[in-house]
Amino acid sequence: MQFEISKAFIEKIEYLIEQKDTQELLSHLGDMHHADIAEILDQLSLDEATYVIKLLDSEKTAEILMEIEEDDREKLLENLTAKEIADEIEEMDTDDATDIILNLSLDLKNEVLKNLKDRNHAQDIVELMRYDENSAGGLMAKELIKVNENWSITGCMEEMRAQAENVTRVHAIYVIDNRGKLKGRLSLKDLITAPSNANIADVYIENVDYVDVHTPAEEVARIMQKYDLEAIPVVDEIGRLVGRITVDDIIDFIRDEADKDYQMAAGISEDVDASDTIWQLTRARLPWLILALFGGFVAVTVAGQFESALTNYGYLFFFTPLIAAMAGNVGVQSSAIIVQSIAKGTLSGSIWKRLLKEVGLNILNGILLAVLLFLGAHFLLGRDYLVAFTISLALISVIIIASLIGTFVPIMLNRYKIDPALATGPFITTSNDIFGLLIFFGIAKYILGF
Amino acid sequence: MQFEISKAFIEKIEYLIEQKDTQELLSHLGDMHHADIAEILDQLSLDEATYVIKLLDSEKTAEILMEIEEDDREKLLENLTAKEIADEIEEMDTDDATDIILNLSLDLKNEVLKNLKDRNHAQDIVELMRYDENSAGGLMAKELIKVNENWSITGCMEEMRAQAENVTRVHAIYVIDNRGKLKGRLSLKDLITAPSNANIADVYIENVDYVDVHTPAEEVARIMQKYDLEAIPVVDEIGRLVGRITVDDIIDFIRDEADKDYQMAAGISEDVDASDTIWQLTRARLPWLILALFGGFVAVTVAGQFESALTNYGYLFFFTPLIAAMAGNVGVQSSAIIVQSIAKGTLSGSIWKRLLKEVGLNILNGILLAVLLFLGAHFLLGRDYLVAFTISLALISVIIIASLIGTFVPIMLNRYKIDPALATGPFITTSNDIFGLLIFFGIAKYILGF
Repeated sequence: MQFEISKAFIEKIEYLIEQKDTQELLSHLGDMHHADIAEILDQLSLDEATYVIKLLDSEKTAEILMEIEEDDREKLLENLTAKEIADEIEEMDTDDATDIILNLSLDLKNEVLKNLKDRNHAQDIVELMRYDENSAGGLMAKELIKVNENWSITGCMEEMRAQAENVTRVHAIYVIDNRGKLKGRLSLKDLITAPSNANIADVYIENVDYVDVHTPAEEVARIMQKYDLEAIPVVDEIGRLVGRITVDDIIDFIRDEADKDYQMAAGISEDVDASDTIWQLTRARLPWLILALFGGFVAVTVAGQFESALTNYGYLFFFTPLIAAMAGNVGVQSSAIIVQSIAKGTLSGSIWKRLLKEVGLNILNGILLAVLLFLGAHFLLGRDYLVAFTISLALISVIIIASLIGTFVPIMLNRYKIDPALATGPFITTSNDIFGLLIFFGIAKYILGF
Repeated sequence: MQFEISKAFIEKIEYLIEQKDTQELLSHLGDMHHADIAEILDQLSLDEATYVIKLLDSEKTAEILMEIEEDDREKLLENLTAKEIADEIEEMDTDDATDIILNLSLDLKNEVLKNLKDRNHAQDIVELMRYDENSAGGLMAKELIKVNENWSITGCMEEMRAQAENVTRVHAIYVIDNRGKLKGRLSLKDLITAPSNANIADVYIENVDYVDVHTPAEEVARIMQKYDLEAIPVVDEIGRLVGRITVDDIIDFIRDEADKDYQMAAGISEDVDASDTIWQLTRARLPWLILALFGGFVAVTVAGQFESALTNYGYLFFFTPLIAAMAGNVGVQSSAIIVQSIAKGTLSGSIWKRLLKEVGLNILNGILLAVLLFLGAHFLLGRDYLVAFTISLALISVIIIASLIGTFVPIMLNRYKIDPALATGPFITTSNDIFGLLIFFGIAKYILGF
């Protein structure tokens, strides 16, 4: 049932494109699943991919286009005329169609909209274009099945059939009143199990979760996840049913959110991919490196304050990368746990309890690591007891402070509505480097005296 | 429509539990959504939560239990008798029921199974218990609607109705032959739009995606995401339809996978949460810290090899945390992009092209950062030209090498079927610390001579 793309197959397709053997190409690609064709296009050059898109009918290519990475899709669309893009748009659901059109240049946008033959479709798209991309209005599609509460079930079967033609997947049938206000829903299960002579008013479920067009996308994702919804209706300011959001849009959103936290922790500030241009990758990465460099200057200055140690205790400086690394690692661990707990919504209880637990945990870990460091410094590296003790004591202190910073900062950011993921990665490692050095040399100076 | 849990409300619930005012409690919680009650239980003590679970009827509590964090659920179940657990299990879908039973102690497991009144349900659970947790068999539920290809649509409406009673959400109706083999599916849309006198054989879709019981969970997730499926049927070794997997199980799986990569990058090796015990958190975190500590010993040794620099160029040691931090940050950025691209399946093309691009990118970034470092070292910190130049040159080299390691290692791990996420976080920062120091002092020794 599943399809593995072999190198030989790609080469064959490339050969057929070169030969312009449309018949053979169609016989290979015609019956293939759109997701598989999208994977094939990914391996072809832009011109080859454009050739395939122009060859296949737009019912199929509209679906293929939605499977392709956004950057590749934009390049492909640049090779199509406004008329050709309009043919693709015609076949798409309104939410996908709107996404595509919003990414076109201004001129092309209007040209494509003018070329749409289905005026209702065009109107729906124009309506959706008005909403903020990160709101329920920006996520929703206009395609849905709605029935009037005053109809009978048998009486509206015809109506439902006609509406269902336009809907890719039917999750629920929404019930509205004469003014178009959302009243409830009818599940497909109800429709199967209801006696055929029932009225809609008798069987519909009044209690229905919904969001309004201005609900932020994160909130929509949270509600759909919490209540395990596969689709949620969207109402306008006066309660009229205007669209629905399905779970597949939310899956992408959830995945993107998790990816964003991860990238943030790795010091990458935009959603980039290995296939992006050097310029895009630089823009996402360089700011964090500059931040780290300036943090580094501070660390150099801190170390410079303890220059007097160079004379008799120069080897202390051998240990600074170790101390900085431990501070960084502990800080990242602590902050990652907090950031994930915030994202999952499982962070509860008081901040003091949380900090106390983190300290307890890290005193435990710190003592164990300090013993290892003591043994290492004394036996392996041959430093005397006092020096090994000094370094070990510094390590415990650094670990505790680093974990407190890693726990405290994201909680505080979150409290002031700033993305706590900012506090992971380069930010936390850099500040912990600096504090780590201060503590390390401070303790060493106090005990050893230099 | 949505429900915000206030502190006052929790206190009220706690008071009512203390007073054992069951009537008031039921009037507050009776009509509430199970996901909301789960959120309330999260704020209560274990004894209070147990009280609520015992109070509400098992149709509701079965759903509540599935919303609660796994650890909390296990503790709650320990407070229930085998009979009470069996009542909960009775109300659950077979996939959830199996998950719960598998986590019980051996004695309790058999006791609960014996207490199940619905023998079919018990048999289904016992069947599901045999499959590997991370296979399609371990993910699937037995609840589904199936019809025989030889039936007529009207003739099987009754049958479908009866089956639908047991299925929480109907995604599709599966079509089987007389031997139980999966032949195709009937979408609910088809059911609405098909003429009522049609036969199933005339309208069903033969081309249906499916997996078999032994398909690994990752593969199931990949297929469902790629083909945008909301449910997928599962067949046994001889093609008989034995269950189905729905998209909500896959959402959890996707989220967990993304979280796992993130945790790995933060040096956390098990799926932990801020609310886990200190022991669980230590087990997930300490191994990485020990790894980093031993990496630190190597770094100390490396620095020690350049002890001769202490006499005339001691201030070079002020720069080691800066160099190590830059190497670590660049390495983590590079590896994170590769790991995410692998996870999303968007990594294509040759490894050499990828490395070349990464080098190009980092020469660019490196030059800019080196210029900043040169200015900083010369003007701010007052080192002479040659020293500032040496440190800057070392920085560019370190950045390029760190990015190559960060790109190369995860690609290689993935090629040998090892989780590439292993190469992010402490592993990459530690090894880049060491290489960074070697390069830094190597270049400094060559230019400055000590």
